[in-house]
Amino acid sequence: MSVAQQPIAVFDSGLGGLSVLKSCLARMPSENFIYLGDTARLPYGSKSAETILRYVQQNVNFLATHKPKAIVVACNSASTVLSALAPEKNLGLSNLFGFEGPVYNVIEPGCQTALHTGAKRIGLLGTKATVASQVYLKLLKKLDAKIEVFANAAPLLVPLVEEGWLDDPLTNLVIHRYIQPLLHHNIESLILGCTHYPFLRSSFKKVLGSSVSLVDSAIAIAEKIGQDLDSGVLAKNPNVLASQTSSPIEIYCTDAGNTFQSMASQLLAPITTAPIRWVDIAPISRDA
Amino acid sequence: MSVAQQPIAVFDSGLGGLSVLKSCLARMPSENFIYLGDTARLPYGSKSAETILRYVQQNVNFLATHKPKAIVVACNSASTVLSALAPEKNLGLSNLFGFEGPVYNVIEPGCQTALHTGAKRIGLLGTKATVASQVYLKLLKKLDAKIEVFANAAPLLVPLVEEGWLDDPLTNLVIHRYIQPLLHHNIESLILGCTHYPFLRSSFKKVLGSSVSLVDSAIAIAEKIGQDLDSGVLAKNPNVLASQTSSPIEIYCTDAGNTFQSMASQLLAPITTAPIRWVDIAPISRDA
Repeated sequence: MSVAQQPIAVFDSGLGGLSVLKSCLARMPSENFIYLGDTARLPYGSKSAETILRYVQQNVNFLATHKPKAIVVACNSASTVLSALAPEKNLGLSNLFGFEGPVYNVIEPGCQTALHTGAKRIGLLGTKATVASQVYLKLLKKLDAKIEVFANAAPLLVPLVEEGWLDDPLTNLVIHRYIQPLLHHNIESLILGCTHYPFLRSSFKKVLGSSVSLVDSAIAIAEKIGQDLDSGVLAKNPNVLASQTSSPIEIYCTDAGNTFQSMASQLLAPITTAPIRWVDIAPISRDA
Repeated sequence: MSVAQQPIAVFDSGLGGLSVLKSCLARMPSENFIYLGDTARLPYGSKSAETILRYVQQNVNFLATHKPKAIVVACNSASTVLSALAPEKNLGLSNLFGFEGPVYNVIEPGCQTALHTGAKRIGLLGTKATVASQVYLKLLKKLDAKIEVFANAAPLLVPLVEEGWLDDPLTNLVIHRYIQPLLHHNIESLILGCTHYPFLRSSFKKVLGSSVSLVDSAIAIAEKIGQDLDSGVLAKNPNVLASQTSSPIEIYCTDAGNTFQSMASQLLAPITTAPIRWVDIAPISRDA
């Protein structure tokens, strides 16, 4: 298999990264993809940097065995931890954990997109891990020192997505509570700093109205990778026949449940995937 | 150390089991306790039986190294998986995973308490794993074939407790939504089938009023263990001086964050604990 034909590997703690996979498939339909949802250990966002880093290491080890040409960290909490670890490598965290190719994370593309809205007062909603790291704040300030960032952790939004209460008055109330402190600061743009949040777009629109623009980091990172393919930074898969563009995407998850299968099919529709495969990436050590 | 002085080991995926530890400390203040919160992998309740069982195995392996005289599974999702595995051993799951002593789980004491309320129409709220297993239904029917059980999974309640929205109008609304289908069946008693839920007692009271009695499995299991100590089934620690009853409880967790420390102190107050220690019970296998 030539480098160009090698898959792009995408991982997240669970379902959220499917918003990134979906945006990637729309932007670069001729590429091959492999997806890993670390559902046995989700969520990442309420856990410490040390724990998240251990999980990322195991995910990368597993994905590397599939010889991908790039790895996409489709999880803001994990991206945050990696960015904090190697801030000078924000655009493509490489050579981590023995993987040689480029590693994309969602932080920088999200920041660039927020910048392009022209907003100077930017809001951020994310998990505890993402907000505590201040990675968005630091990068936005570096890109434009005049920008002010107002952040709030919103830990209930991930379970609300996983509960399927996507366009629901109760979800609107929860979002309203998390957004209220940011609106007091007159934000002009809001970064959806977690890959689960795009699935709540309708509720965000209802609560925010049209005065605040939404920044979807799933679309932002897909555009960044697409540009790298177009410019030759990353080897582009040669055009394939239309019949091959709907070839199944390989999806793995670490929990054996079947909820993921039905939700993934629903969220990715009309794109079809091969049956989801269970994988144990953290086998029990007998001498633990 | 004599058997009597050996600690009673309690574990849960996170904070919820502290409701069990607190009830145990109130019922048997002269016993020594060790607690493990598997915070690196919480929650358990949305994960599959296979995954939960792997985690339970690692937790038991770790706790066994502290030579406890008994292990308490202070997590309904984990108790459910164990009960389904060995239904004939509901009262004390022994000899699992190489641990020789008695293993207590919360299911049976909760069922017994519900039975003693005299209710024939019993409601159950729990995690997805607990409800899907039908373990409560089967055991209650076995104890009294005339009992009817109406169950609903309530996955948002654990994150609400962990967010600290304990007596909150929004939490009341979420509880109301989960309880509504059960109230349509005219339940007389409600089993709080997750060790997180006792921390929401005030909200449950508001939503339910006084017509439905609440069954708190934390109190139920503490009473069961207390009886086993009183009757000599389990070796009782001889009475110690009052000054020794406030000896620190050993608490471990698998995530390195410090949220657990502050919440544990708050929830267990006025009982003090030694500083919480981090432990890696699932080390990374290099050949994974």
